[in-house]
Amino acid sequence: MKELQERILKEGQVLGGGILKVDSFVNHQVDPVLMDICGKELARRFASVGATKVLTAEISGIAPALTTALHLGLPIVYARKTKPITMPDQVYLTLAPSHTKGRMVELIVSPEYLSNDEKVLIIDDFLASGATILGLARLAEAAGSHIIGVGALIEKTFEGGRAALKPLGVQIEALACITSLDDGNIVFSTAQ
Amino acid sequence: MKELQERILKEGQVLGGGILKVDSFVNHQVDPVLMDICGKELARRFASVGATKVLTAEISGIAPALTTALHLGLPIVYARKTKPITMPDQVYLTLAPSHTKGRMVELIVSPEYLSNDEKVLIIDDFLASGATILGLARLAEAAGSHIIGVGALIEKTFEGGRAALKPLGVQIEALACITSLDDGNIVFSTAQ
Repeated sequence: MKELQERILKEGQVLGGGILKVDSFVNHQVDPVLMDICGKELARRFASVGATKVLTAEISGIAPALTTALHLGLPIVYARKTKPITMPDQVYLTLAPSHTKGRMVELIVSPEYLSNDEKVLIIDDFLASGATILGLARLAEAAGSHIIGVGALIEKTFEGGRAALKPLGVQIEALACITSLDDGNIVFSTAQ
Repeated sequence: MKELQERILKEGQVLGGGILKVDSFVNHQVDPVLMDICGKELARRFASVGATKVLTAEISGIAPALTTALHLGLPIVYARKTKPITMPDQVYLTLAPSHTKGRMVELIVSPEYLSNDEKVLIIDDFLASGATILGLARLAEAAGSHIIGVGALIEKTFEGGRAALKPLGVQIEALACITSLDDGNIVFSTAQ
């Protein structure tokens, strides 16, 4: 998507280790207007998959998931990384590696909000290795729900997430696909 | 605000210790349409204060802050509770007690996104003791910014937050003011 790619080129910073810093409009400061445009586009791409719920992971997934869900007219559930006291003792919990935290994090969803036969659209800020999204998929499957699509703002194709998600057998969409960050240069896929 | 009060009455659960569980539409599952209505109303109430940025705390503040900022056409910054590797070494950091976590948490903002002379509108899900909001205000002041308003979805007036925030000398708005949760009954202020 043109608006997102332009913003990445303008404000994205390539750090070491394949990290793209987009803290000025996605991950710490957020541009709500851009998030709304991105959510609208993701909603358009998944308009016909029949989702009943949008699932994401706190923290950075919340903004794009919220705007996508707003345009689809669906509730969102964000998996927590720590269990708040309002959550029941019995939960769905899985572990996933966090790229930016450098350690494993828990992903926790209450059975109250993810039920049997839900059709779940997963939305996240990044599709990199796919580990977080696979974690969300495990939670949904544990609840007896079905994943029906995966959407991300930014894909780093060189981290292999799309291949890792292939066993899910669902439509995968990313609004900006980055094929390389080598030497600090952001290269987008020309296939979009 | 009528829509929010009705939803609280319908789905809110009074737990022990003055905790109101609204996990089905604010804190774990989120209703984006309701959040958008709430954001629109908060934006209306703060339309004339001249804010340049909306500040909130991860995690639960993000949804209402995002929709408020969308209607005001402003960026949001959410204070992080753990420092990601994308953040510079030098940050603004303060401690605030977390009601639902039962411990002190860090609130961290990068100087990159909170600058001198910014006019900051603080938005959060709850106004209870005011401790988190005072923490956000300290971060903003450390950056040389000025707090120009505080908005929350739900105020628990019996926890004294409004009095605690009085020294800030700014407009304070809450869309649903709860005066008591005694005996499991949710009582709203009739002054709204």
